[in-house]
Amino acid sequence: MNETFLQACRGEKTDYTPVWMMRQAGRYLPEYQKVRGTIPFLELCKHPELCVEVTLQPLRRFAMDAAILFSDILIPIEAMGAELSFHEGQGPIIANPCRDAETVEQLKIADPEQDLPFVQETVRLLRSELDVPLIGFAGAPFTCATYLIEGGSSKFFYETKKLMFTQPGLFHRLMDKISETVIRALKAQAKAGAQALQLFDTWAGILAPCDFEIFALPYVQRIFRKLRDLNVPLIYFANNGATLLDMSARAGAHVIGIDWRTDIGDAIGKAGRLAVQGNLDPLALLLPQEELKERIGRLLGGARDACGHIFNLGHGIHQLTPPDQVRLAVDFVHELSAR
Amino acid sequence: MNETFLQACRGEKTDYTPVWMMRQAGRYLPEYQKVRGTIPFLELCKHPELCVEVTLQPLRRFAMDAAILFSDILIPIEAMGAELSFHEGQGPIIANPCRDAETVEQLKIADPEQDLPFVQETVRLLRSELDVPLIGFAGAPFTCATYLIEGGSSKFFYETKKLMFTQPGLFHRLMDKISETVIRALKAQAKAGAQALQLFDTWAGILAPCDFEIFALPYVQRIFRKLRDLNVPLIYFANNGATLLDMSARAGAHVIGIDWRTDIGDAIGKAGRLAVQGNLDPLALLLPQEELKERIGRLLGGARDACGHIFNLGHGIHQLTPPDQVRLAVDFVHELSAR
Repeated sequence: MNETFLQACRGEKTDYTPVWMMRQAGRYLPEYQKVRGTIPFLELCKHPELCVEVTLQPLRRFAMDAAILFSDILIPIEAMGAELSFHEGQGPIIANPCRDAETVEQLKIADPEQDLPFVQETVRLLRSELDVPLIGFAGAPFTCATYLIEGGSSKFFYETKKLMFTQPGLFHRLMDKISETVIRALKAQAKAGAQALQLFDTWAGILAPCDFEIFALPYVQRIFRKLRDLNVPLIYFANNGATLLDMSARAGAHVIGIDWRTDIGDAIGKAGRLAVQGNLDPLALLLPQEELKERIGRLLGGARDACGHIFNLGHGIHQLTPPDQVRLAVDFVHELSAR
Repeated sequence: MNETFLQACRGEKTDYTPVWMMRQAGRYLPEYQKVRGTIPFLELCKHPELCVEVTLQPLRRFAMDAAILFSDILIPIEAMGAELSFHEGQGPIIANPCRDAETVEQLKIADPEQDLPFVQETVRLLRSELDVPLIGFAGAPFTCATYLIEGGSSKFFYETKKLMFTQPGLFHRLMDKISETVIRALKAQAKAGAQALQLFDTWAGILAPCDFEIFALPYVQRIFRKLRDLNVPLIYFANNGATLLDMSARAGAHVIGIDWRTDIGDAIGKAGRLAVQGNLDPLALLLPQEELKERIGRLLGGARDACGHIFNLGHGIHQLTPPDQVRLAVDFVHELSAR
């Protein structure tokens, strides 16, 4: 078992900088596209054997130091009662958006054993196949709330902020329910064998810091507090969260994920004694090889003083990324950091 | 003539904090919708009398301390040869995206006198009507380049970064041409009577700081250097630019616009001796009156130590904003800051 990733999460000294990439199991891989050609995305997420297959695909090609469970941040949200569907090129749609007391009350707190058995089954199957750690994950409550309220993705998040600003009590009630679902889902993943847990806060960055502090951070803190006893590394990734970093560092995670907009040296200053994960611009993987290596070199240099660094992208890998560039990046991180 | 806005731009002491709002002439006003019902957006931008009308509409309702020319950041780009159109709810489309040497060479540097006479005519007509300063504007080169390269708006800006990373010489050539066009367009606006000039860098925030420094900042600096002699305040707004603020402060502008993600106190620390403009979350205008006042109070308090503060939103006003909330905000800024 290669424990480099877990060591870095714990801030221990490692032989080299471990690497994984957000969405490493995804559309940039022809073998993933092949599986997806046979089954719609949402069905794939509920099919343990195929989830195992696509989780393993990048590990067969690249020397990744961690695997991440193939699933979607909205899977537990569907289990709460959201009528979820995915449409090619459109992102998720929730047919019954949640904007009033009645629809919030109708949401149930999901029971992972009953509602999400396929997730735990995927985790169990993966653990018997993997020789690197397996990361479980969920969407952070604020991000899940935006999908529930908007009924999908959004440009301005008008409905979310309208609810937040005009009915804060109801917004908090919704966040309570989502948080409890996320806690249960992540505990079940850990119980099934997930060796680290990441909260993805994809849309945290649409909030002013003063609103993040009131409407999002307390729920992330609650979740991590409840997961702390599991003794697995906890990772918090607040996308586009440069101005939220001070607060993210107080979220209760062991590792702070950094998007590509922030200089990693600056992020480390704010992360204090936490490990950091990141943060190459996913599209910098398009750079010619020498420039890509140079940029990776600067990133590793910038992360020199981190209390643990896990190399990652600053966001999910883009579907048009050439797999050979991914290999180059992974191998070069290993090579340079091992010197 | 109410010069409060210009005084704040110059860092002079003012009797109260001046206010204007990005997109203050826009769809949240029924009288604007009425005009738009009679004419497509792009035609409206080329019709001086109607541009004057919609520019004045918010000033009839609210005690704004500045007017901003009604136009679009892509108007000079169309004059370069982009086949521009706007489709309801879709944003701009450029039918001939610019991704290779041939299409870049075909772009011409626009001549405002010949290609954009309607802009200068609008400015001239407005000056004879206004008793507050008139702001002229253009899109910053990087933002204009994203539209030209993507052929419209984008989620990941794959084509832009691909060009930037794989053909940097061609990317810089494109930026050269756009910058020269922007310089000419803004000089013509100032000559026609614009009393301040703002560069909107809507998409600067998709760049890692190291890329902003190489691919975007030098062009903004060049433009401001060429405009410095006009002796009008120059404003730079890099949207979602929290991690670019140190560099934005070196762009050569007199005023730095701040989006709502950054605490204004932090921004002021980085703006140094420049004035700041911002930065209420546009959707915070949905807050109940007392909470809205409290938030404005905190914002004004946070801006206390600025070398000049112009109250504004942190982005364009949302089309579903109740006009009465805009009035409340404008009047309360004036009332509280005059005490």
